[in-house]
Amino acid sequence: MTLHDASLAGPGPWAGISTAAIAHNLAWLRRRVQTAGAQAGAGGGAGGAPGSPPRLWAVVKADAYGHGLHHALAAAGAADGVCVSDLDDAWRVRRQGWQQPVLVLSAWGLRADTLRDPALGELHVVIDDPATLHTIASAAPGLPQLHVWLRHAGHLYTLGFAGTAYTDAFQRLHARAQAGALAGVGHLHHYAAAENADTLAVERQAFATAAAGLPGPHCTGNSAALCGGAAIPVHAQDQWLRCGLALYGASALPGVTGPQLGLRPAMSLRARLLNVQHVAPGQTVGYGGSFRATQATCIGVVGIGYGHGVPRQLWQRGGVLAGRHGRRVPLAGRVAMDCLTVDLGAAPPEAPGDIITLWGHAPGGACLPVEEAAQACDTIAAELLTGLTARTPLITE
Amino acid sequence: MTLHDASLAGPGPWAGISTAAIAHNLAWLRRRVQTAGAQAGAGGGAGGAPGSPPRLWAVVKADAYGHGLHHALAAAGAADGVCVSDLDDAWRVRRQGWQQPVLVLSAWGLRADTLRDPALGELHVVIDDPATLHTIASAAPGLPQLHVWLRHAGHLYTLGFAGTAYTDAFQRLHARAQAGALAGVGHLHHYAAAENADTLAVERQAFATAAAGLPGPHCTGNSAALCGGAAIPVHAQDQWLRCGLALYGASALPGVTGPQLGLRPAMSLRARLLNVQHVAPGQTVGYGGSFRATQATCIGVVGIGYGHGVPRQLWQRGGVLAGRHGRRVPLAGRVAMDCLTVDLGAAPPEAPGDIITLWGHAPGGACLPVEEAAQACDTIAAELLTGLTARTPLITE
Repeated sequence: MTLHDASLAGPGPWAGISTAAIAHNLAWLRRRVQTAGAQAGAGGGAGGAPGSPPRLWAVVKADAYGHGLHHALAAAGAADGVCVSDLDDAWRVRRQGWQQPVLVLSAWGLRADTLRDPALGELHVVIDDPATLHTIASAAPGLPQLHVWLRHAGHLYTLGFAGTAYTDAFQRLHARAQAGALAGVGHLHHYAAAENADTLAVERQAFATAAAGLPGPHCTGNSAALCGGAAIPVHAQDQWLRCGLALYGASALPGVTGPQLGLRPAMSLRARLLNVQHVAPGQTVGYGGSFRATQATCIGVVGIGYGHGVPRQLWQRGGVLAGRHGRRVPLAGRVAMDCLTVDLGAAPPEAPGDIITLWGHAPGGACLPVEEAAQACDTIAAELLTGLTARTPLITE
Repeated sequence: MTLHDASLAGPGPWAGISTAAIAHNLAWLRRRVQTAGAQAGAGGGAGGAPGSPPRLWAVVKADAYGHGLHHALAAAGAADGVCVSDLDDAWRVRRQGWQQPVLVLSAWGLRADTLRDPALGELHVVIDDPATLHTIASAAPGLPQLHVWLRHAGHLYTLGFAGTAYTDAFQRLHARAQAGALAGVGHLHHYAAAENADTLAVERQAFATAAAGLPGPHCTGNSAALCGGAAIPVHAQDQWLRCGLALYGASALPGVTGPQLGLRPAMSLRARLLNVQHVAPGQTVGYGGSFRATQATCIGVVGIGYGHGVPRQLWQRGGVLAGRHGRRVPLAGRVAMDCLTVDLGAAPPEAPGDIITLWGHAPGGACLPVEEAAQACDTIAAELLTGLTARTPLITE
């Protein structure tokens, strides 16, 4: 769809997606990761690929964090592979022409015969529960094309294996790989609190301990671990790093936005100003009379609401960018299903039809990072980005 | 899609939709409205249709409050018409075979030539801003098939006309209708605080004052006004009442659920139990270590998260129904993008693969009204119902 589509003449909103921003963010991450690899090379390594930089998985689950799978794939060519939620998404990625490896993060309910589909290409799956372990480890006559990653339960402790169960599961899979019944077995860890340098160090140590003495590549990462101040430790063994949120230009670090790190927001959520209503002092506006004018002002009605994916919680502390240049104005009154209201002030330059930007860049450049909108809703950027409903089309910008 | 679809063997969630529940709720609303009509008939009426019961608009905007437009249309045959957000939805409704009137709630950006499409059938549009008023009132050679409804700004005060601007706009449109250039002109009001009997009475009086002495039918309603204790006032003139939320079995009244009113929830949000993890006292679980076990227990991982439309806010006070019979258990730790965790207790009867119900009915009958889930998130039922993302398929139950 383009901005000239007839449907955009209607009152509804859209999310402008910049594939250039995703490509920029991927290059930014690649530089971070290559620096870590160069440091490891200087230090020497005893494992399989000493000095080679870690490889990068671009996480495109949840419809590429709400940006549209096709947009992310178009921009992720420089990644070494993509991570998806489930096997349906793996097929979707292949149908869209992605040739590099695909990592399926939940193998729940998979059957061995399904995993043999050659259309799946180089397929990696995470094993995170006993049932899947059994399915994969007992598949006859093996799955010699399949790469598996054993999930370490770690501090998240919701999926995966811990302690001797981890070692036992790994040895069982490793023996299968040695016998040619699997392509390879790696170690995978997902951090519970990577945004905190102290807990990150503890988690890294716990994973290193769990995998100590065991062969195979390591897979960790996440945006907070990659973007924070802590150095990225490089294992002597082959290493893959996963990155999601930062790929889309947002930061997982508290109090720091993507643009402050050098990332570019890939989504700009836009709607139209539908009406401008003059209100007198004392006049209330919105459901429950939730806004009361303290002086004469103009209330702008914007064609986006919670039914499109804007949290109702935004109204008490949130703002938007009004017009082409992105004049920042506060919300005024509760968010409704199909519209919300903003306080444009007494003599606003904006008129019905003008673009209102909920997060991302105003058409003329000013930026309201999604992290700020999330903070106004007491939540995280990922919830806002992945929370748009099907009523909000994704448009290339 | 049916429950036997292959995709449902995957880890993802789905929303079960009951068209029988929607039909039941519509019949419930019809009885409420007919009672009001009978009372008016007994009192006599001076207008066009004394004693005839009010007509009922079924509001199917926002993809039928998240239930799927096709599901709502299949169940709404007993309604006199449906309300949609915009003209795109009006065409969608017609393509699905709906023959009764359609009311478009936002006419923003409409052009007169578009409104002449005979495929739109009996079309009603709301006029709520000066630009649309001008478009409709000056269309040459008129729109003799079009019914228009003038929006009274009222206490919501975000769209529509107030005071003399209302009277002037109505006279302008009425003159067009008298000349045969419009099919008819009515008065439309949307309540700002219908859940409160006192403010509802004030709003009703304000609308009655605005329309006093002017001909034409009236259109009000909303679920709180129809379901609350206050009687539904019936105008001597022809009257239409709009109803959305209650049609889907939820209540807009604080502290009262749909089932308590006699309504049936039409959506049951379901996911699968993916894993059961034994945890020891003191063990933390989830992002940020947000749950800490005080005794030995089992943590269930459920394949639904905020990326499917479950608010992150649910975790601190929310619960779910576990298994076929719907044993109620609390969430344990923060909601993640693709999964959430629940505290199943020390010796749970549930096993991986079992169904978890986030709101609505467990397969075996127990009910967790969406209003309760909304309250745990400090929001309203409509935000949860309309907030599911495209990753959550709607399945007929």
